This record gives sequence, C-alpha cells and structure tokens, in this order.
Amino acid sequence: MHIDVFPTAGGADQEALAGKTVLIIDVLRATSTITTALANGAAAVLSVLTIDAAREAAACLPPGTFLLGGERKALKIPGFDLDNSPRQYTREAVAGKTIVMTTTNGTVAIKKALPAAKLLIASFLNARAVAREAWQRGTDIYLLCAGTRNRFSLDDAACAGMLVNYLQEMEPQARLGDLAFTLRQLYLSHQEDLPHLISHASHYQRLVDLGLEADIAYCLQQDIYHVVPWLDKEQNLIVL
Amino acid sequence: MHIDVFPTAGGADQEALAGKTVLIIDVLRATSTITTALANGAAAVLSVLTIDAAREAAACLPPGTFLLGGERKALKIPGFDLDNSPRQYTREAVAGKTIVMTTTNGTVAIKKALPAAKLLIASFLNARAVAREAWQRGTDIYLLCAGTRNRFSLDDAACAGMLVNYLQEMEPQARLGDLAFTLRQLYLSHQEDLPHLISHASHYQRLVDLGLEADIAYCLQQDIYHVVPWLDKEQNLIVL
Repeated sequence: MHIDVFPTAGGADQEALAGKTVLIIDVLRATSTITTALANGAAAVLSVLTIDAAREAAACLPPGTFLLGGERKALKIPGFDLDNSPRQYTREAVAGKTIVMTTTNGTVAIKKALPAAKLLIASFLNARAVAREAWQRGTDIYLLCAGTRNRFSLDDAACAGMLVNYLQEMEPQARLGDLAFTLRQLYLSHQEDLPHLISHASHYQRLVDLGLEADIAYCLQQDIYHVVPWLDKEQNLIVL
Repeated sequence: MHIDVFPTAGGADQEALAGKTVLIIDVLRATSTITTALANGAAAVLSVLTIDAAREAAACLPPGTFLLGGERKALKIPGFDLDNSPRQYTREAVAGKTIVMTTTNGTVAIKKALPAAKLLIASFLNARAVAREAWQRGTDIYLLCAGTRNRFSLDDAACAGMLVNYLQEMEPQARLGDLAFTLRQLYLSHQEDLPHLISHASHYQRLVDLGLEADIAYCLQQDIYHVVPWLDKEQNLIVL
C-alpha cells in the first residue's frame, strides 16, 4: 500500500488519483462542516463549485427539503440559509435535509478528486473512522489537502499527518510518499499541542480576525464522530 | 518581510513570484551541480529545458568553450560531456567553460521562476551565502523547490527548511507562510541527522539504486561554498 499527500487541490495530479482511495481534507472548515451535517442527520450533501450552481440545484428540489450552505471569503453567502460554520449544522437545523453547499477551497478539492475510485471526506472530527475505512479498502491512498486559495495550509497538513499516522499504525508496511512522511513527522512532533501548531496557520489568523475562534476549537476536536462521508457518484451526493 | 515556499515547480504561482527574490532548490542534484560548477570556475551555466535546445545552444558557441551537461532519468544524455553528478564538475573539467545544462526538474523550476526580480540558485552546499544575499535584498522571498517529477521531494524540503531557518535568524520579524513554517519545523526536528531524514526521500532511493551514494553524500554537505549563483536575465546565463 502506497500512501501520499497532495498539498493543494491545484497541485493534485488527477491521473494519479484515478482508481485510488482519496481523502479530502479541508479542516477549516468545509470537511468539518460536511462531517458534522451528516453526523447530525442531514440526508446528503450536494457539493457544487459556484453560487449559481447551488441556486440552480436548489431550484430543482422540493421546498423544505434542502438548505443552502457555504461561504465566500469565509462569510455567509447572501440568501443562503447557513454559512460554513459547522456549529450551525445542528440536528435541529439539518436532520433529514439535503445540504446544497459551495465553499472556496473544499468543493474545488472534491471536484478535482472525481477520478478517485472512492472519495471520502476527512477532518479531525472523524479521522480515525475515515482512516479505518480507507485502510480496509486495501488500495493505494491519496490524501488531498484543499489548501487555502491554492496554497499549502497548515491546518489541513496537520490533519493529513494525523491520518497518515493512523494509516501507518494500521498498515506498518505501507510505503509513504515524501509529503506523507513529512506531515507524519510534523504531526508526531506536535501531537501534544495541535491547537498551538495550527495557530501558526495563516488561515487560522483570518478566522480569528473574523471572530470565529469557536469554530476553530470545534474543528480541532479529534475523533468525536465515527461517520465516514463518501461521494456517491451516481447520485452526485455525499452520504453516509 | 514575507517568506514562503512552493513545494514543486508545477505548484508555483508565477504571479506570486513576480518581483520577489526567488531561491531555486533542487538538492539532488541540479542546483548542487550548478553551485559546484560555478564555485570551481565555470564561466557561466546556460539552463535549457530540452536536449535539442542544449544542442542548438552549443552549436552557437565556439568549440572548446563549453561543455554539455545534464541528465534524463538521472543518467547522462547520449553525446553530452557530463552528466548531472556534481563530482564531475571539477576545476580541471569546468574552469573557464560555459556549461549548457538540461535536467528533468531543476531547469523546469528555473524557467518557472523567470518573473522573479532576482533568481538565486540554492543548495545545502551554499545555503548560508544564498540566505544572506536574499535577506540583504530586503524584499519578500519565495523558495521554489523543484520537486521530483512534479511531486514534493523531501531533500528539497529539508534544504528549504534550513534556508528558512537561516532567514528567520537574520530577520526574526519575518512572517512565514504555512509551508515555510512547516519545513522550518521539519528542519529543526532533524537538523542533527539530516542524512537519515533525507534517506526517506523516494528520489534518494532511486539514486542509491543507481549507485550514486557518493553524489548524495556530496550534496548534503552544508555551507562548503560561499558562492551565490544568480540568473543574469539579459544574458540568460547563471553566473556569480
């Protein structure tokens, strides 16, 4: 088993992803939010690239069955029901609903990974469950960090390091690519104080500037959910 | 001063590089070889993308004034004078000569960084001298790792971490981008045993398989040269 990481959606090699198990990571906040929504009983998440695509998709759904969610520049999109804060995706808000979602980085990474044999949604919140599912599939695994505006993002990198570490524990003979090795080292050196490590991320600073510390604290919780969101390509929906 | 790193040539944002000081890193072996050639008295290095371009450039130079160097798949190119082993670029071989050079990753990274205000060639061999020159210029600094076939490469990453650490020592107030921060952490955690760290690089293994351990040991020597190769854009030559 070969395990490697792509540092950004833009830097990912789609040919390499074809036929592999691919884990999408956008810790702050898209994959944390998708995980939370489905853990809290949302029926499915429809990930789309643009605001127009989200509105068009919603227009085809029966009223009352869906919510529009996502962000641009980390803020709620005008006319949408929810922003990209996972703390808004409570059971009361989302149970039974389809979430039509567009975000700046996460949805781009999901689109990039469509050639994958299996596409899973990973975050600190559900890392161990996702690692176990990926490992049980037995194929090569790529972790695709969404990054922030196509730059390497420390929050995604730390989560990738934790996932690689879980995978290496499950499969000690796995071969790690250079970035997988590097991020596992990063994780092992800082696992006792991940919030401090991630406080150096430039995206972290942007969210703090917007008063979103509570979102960050929420997203850095480890393994509080045991759900594994995956993309059902036939329906084009992320489901459990 | 802002300092950041791009993990591969393909992943570099040329717009972001425009007007900046850019350090090109291809430890195993292009930038180590260019540094060695110029330290040993080569007149200049002409970096070109293709084998044909190298032969065409050589055809325009007076016989006896140049050498053809480089590699494909880490091996010497048929009809060329030298391969990509820095240990071939001795004073006896290269003094006074122009080296026309093409390599798989390094020359691609140099091409990508042409929008830079100043393009410097960095390696472990001359890291401190390059960091000092970059710092003295006072502008934002990008480190561009060549990578290996457009993948993140641990050898380049470790060298980038060492350069970031030097730069941060020279400019404690510098703001580090997420990858600059990550690779500095990697370097600080492993600085006592860099050869062991870099032995995990997949490119390292390929060179070992080709019997090139001596090249690797050579390239991992730190600060043995105090030269700073830079690209003279008017002449399109890398010089001191």
